Amino acid sequence: MQSRYFTINDYPKGTPSRDLFELHSRELPPLGDGEVRIRNTWLSVDPYMRGRMSGVTTYIDPFELNAPLEGAAVGEVTASRDARFAEGDKVRHMGGWRDIAQLPGDMLEPLPGIEVPEQAYLGVLGMPGMTAWTGLNRIAEMRDGDNVLVSAAGGAVGSLAVQLAKAKGGKVVGIAGAADKLEWLEQHGITAVNYRGRSADELSQALKEACPEGFDVYYENVGGDCLEAALNNLKVGARIAVCGMIARYNAEAPQPGPSNLAMILIRRAKMQGFIVFDHWDEYSRFLDEVGPQVAKGEIDYQETVESGLESAPDAFLKLFEGANHGKMLVKL
Amino acid sequence: MQSRYFTINDYPKGTPSRDLFELHSRELPPLGDGEVRIRNTWLSVDPYMRGRMSGVTTYIDPFELNAPLEGAAVGEVTASRDARFAEGDKVRHMGGWRDIAQLPGDMLEPLPGIEVPEQAYLGVLGMPGMTAWTGLNRIAEMRDGDNVLVSAAGGAVGSLAVQLAKAKGGKVVGIAGAADKLEWLEQHGITAVNYRGRSADELSQALKEACPEGFDVYYENVGGDCLEAALNNLKVGARIAVCGMIARYNAEAPQPGPSNLAMILIRRAKMQGFIVFDHWDEYSRFLDEVGPQVAKGEIDYQETVESGLESAPDAFLKLFEGANHGKMLVKL
Repeated sequence: MQSRYFTINDYPKGTPSRDLFELHSRELPPLGDGEVRIRNTWLSVDPYMRGRMSGVTTYIDPFELNAPLEGAAVGEVTASRDARFAEGDKVRHMGGWRDIAQLPGDMLEPLPGIEVPEQAYLGVLGMPGMTAWTGLNRIAEMRDGDNVLVSAAGGAVGSLAVQLAKAKGGKVVGIAGAADKLEWLEQHGITAVNYRGRSADELSQALKEACPEGFDVYYENVGGDCLEAALNNLKVGARIAVCGMIARYNAEAPQPGPSNLAMILIRRAKMQGFIVFDHWDEYSRFLDEVGPQVAKGEIDYQETVESGLESAPDAFLKLFEGANHGKMLVKL
Repeated sequence: MQSRYFTINDYPKGTPSRDLFELHSRELPPLGDGEVRIRNTWLSVDPYMRGRMSGVTTYIDPFELNAPLEGAAVGEVTASRDARFAEGDKVRHMGGWRDIAQLPGDMLEPLPGIEVPEQAYLGVLGMPGMTAWTGLNRIAEMRDGDNVLVSAAGGAVGSLAVQLAKAKGGKVVGIAGAADKLEWLEQHGITAVNYRGRSADELSQALKEACPEGFDVYYENVGGDCLEAALNNLKVGARIAVCGMIARYNAEAPQPGPSNLAMILIRRAKMQGFIVFDHWDEYSRFLDEVGPQVAKGEIDYQETVESGLESAPDAFLKLFEGANHGKMLVKL
């Protein structure tokens, strides 16, 4: 059985180019004891993967050069030497960026039995959804009625964060750029603020107009000017959950931080970084709470779908252009 | 009865100059019902007062122009129309920057009965001591054995923070500039790191050499390069208590923030600003814990004493030159 998979041939500086990625093929060895073979049906590409392309251990090991890349995927078991998995079972695992994965059974999770399309377990009920929920509830300690600001509010995580926040009853403001993202936010009762063409000061002023009383919670996906503008609009005792800082993932040189960081002191605010994998023991709790909302159609999760394994690098690179609406996925 | 007091005649930009301060005198009105007259014996000058000279409400109202300045002071009651206070009582209050204060009894605290010199209630057992204790214990949630980094470690707050941290058993590193501050730190078992003449990168490297395994807690008094260097030396799950950012108090233009703020994310760190006045309901708990240590001489608190009311502005301005060792006080 052949497996086709992507590798990277370098640790790039700046925005990766398409020729960083190479498609290879290899004959898989016979299934070992405890191993399972999966035909992937959906692959996930996520901004955090850029960090694994830097050759530096951050909160996760770097990708190995010229070895199959990794990432979340959903697929169907085609052969199994692990008694827990049988042919036809649907599973989630980290053997993405390839068509056929062969992994120890310990690295697979059966898909939960909620009535949703299987790719939802890569998005709204997968890592991005869990990330939105963890940041709001566990890190920012969101309370009913809190005013919440979310950056990259049209992205995979942000678009869920705004909806989870809105359900708690406070004013919710989302920062985005593309016109259709702004429109989507407004359609969902979120006050949309456009960052494009605005300096940090102008963005700060726009946020003040959107929510004059200030924010109890800021869900941070971007960094840069968004963070500076948010810091100027915090209520006393505000909490900032730092989920990502995509503005700098491709930066070649260090970028200066916000000039108003002292607002942390003036507003007695808390800013805390988190990695969703540290909180995975809460996944079943998240699923119990958000799963039924998704099954009932109460959460509008968007997907941007590219087709075919060959499209995976482009799908990944589009994340940094803000071209995705909600979760970026590759359908095999 | 005449009261002599200082005012400011402007809200300065940049480093205040001596002629900002004016000494005035006025005849006090007869004591009203519930009022108390106090002959001040010790005045406190503190970096946070710079914020009150900016004409902007931050976490505390600005000083009123051409009105008596305020600040912590200790004195002796000379006349009282409040039954709780009698002539000769020693009290602490916020009617500093003057020789004779006349205040409602509600604004006075009797000095606690611990056997320490009365001015200790302006320093080690006053606001600076409470600030050191609150930042370490309540904000940074310091645990036994934590490695702790303190900036401005020779200052009024920092010199107490390093000693309170040292008592918890971990590695303690203090950042300071003046040679005698560095020496004082080393004499107390604190690894001293000089920030002078070092870039943020060089300071970062020096901290790495001082504590290769990184810090669990950073007690932040300075901001700027100190913060950038500290961010590079955090352990996973580190906590930063932001007590002050004196590096920027006199800045005329916004200063860029640290270029490595994403370390908050990478290290899943928490950074939290606090104002000691928000935590004053814990003062008796602080006093119970730290008071006996001070009375037994287990804490080496330093004082820099200027003499006479006239010296108050210079004493205040010296804070920004790092000229004080421990608490800066004015003895009347």
